[in-house]
Amino acid sequence: MNKKRIAIDMDDVMTDAIGRFIELYQQEFQEDLSDLRLPGRNLTNTVPPERLEAIKQYPHQPNFFKDLEPIAGSLEVVEQLHQRYEIFITTAALEFEHSFTPKYNWLKKHLPFITWKNIVFCGDKSIIRADYLLDDLDRNLKTFTGTGLLFTAPHNAHVTGYTRLNNWQEVAAYFLH
Amino acid sequence: MNKKRIAIDMDDVMTDAIGRFIELYQQEFQEDLSDLRLPGRNLTNTVPPERLEAIKQYPHQPNFFKDLEPIAGSLEVVEQLHQRYEIFITTAALEFEHSFTPKYNWLKKHLPFITWKNIVFCGDKSIIRADYLLDDLDRNLKTFTGTGLLFTAPHNAHVTGYTRLNNWQEVAAYFLH
Repeated sequence: MNKKRIAIDMDDVMTDAIGRFIELYQQEFQEDLSDLRLPGRNLTNTVPPERLEAIKQYPHQPNFFKDLEPIAGSLEVVEQLHQRYEIFITTAALEFEHSFTPKYNWLKKHLPFITWKNIVFCGDKSIIRADYLLDDLDRNLKTFTGTGLLFTAPHNAHVTGYTRLNNWQEVAAYFLH
Repeated sequence: MNKKRIAIDMDDVMTDAIGRFIELYQQEFQEDLSDLRLPGRNLTNTVPPERLEAIKQYPHQPNFFKDLEPIAGSLEVVEQLHQRYEIFITTAALEFEHSFTPKYNWLKKHLPFITWKNIVFCGDKSIIRADYLLDDLDRNLKTFTGTGLLFTAPHNAHVTGYTRLNNWQEVAAYFLH
């Protein structure tokens, strides 16, 4: 029997992109933005409106995606899943031109068993053919034709209609029970 | 009715990667490698064996993919197809780390109507969900679940089992009849 295929997003699923926003905000304004981690929060309802456009440009900076912290449990669980499933990393790198190389290097460093064949840098994820898609964004799951799994992040706290997995322990339980 | 979706490869379909091999070979050895354009030819049966490994490294050089020549008719026909179909560019950028940015820039320059949402840098193309895949490589078409279309290139002259389109005029005739 062929292995089932799981497509896994990077930002806010495997990599702590929110942490990078907090770090860069602290550097620029000497203010704490940790509230961005609270359920229901996103840039729009957390950052002062006059700063919003500037903050939204952070991911366009050359180093935004460099050496992001892995989200707790992600590396270990992806390695376990890799034994029983076909894993593809499917990430929206094309939106941020400078993200190609840091994202590629992150994967090479943290998940060396994922070869270039199983990495996909895309935009609209409706192009992805897989059995499962684990992603934090409603807009990606909406057009996916397989089973969409919503990985909990502050900005998706109010999203309904998908199987929700709150952390990597729950991802492991879902796939490896 | 939803538009049908066509996934289109870049190298040796829209961009003249073979031309770059010929150019770099001329620079390195002061010898003509134009025979690489003859039907049935590939690097292995055209380059002297003692040089083969070196030539195969060319696409790993930082500038290999920079400003490749468009293949005749490709830009015009893709623009026409874009009116009636949903176009995704699906290219194996992940095999060659330095190809991300030049490939992205090529698309921005030559096909500005293709946004980041419709660009896919991938490895194994079995991840692509589309109605058609236009590609020069047998190995990409083999695992594709839609209609695979073989775009003629010297290295695929002997491949059978797919609908073959010999040039962009034939691509236009196939899709726009």
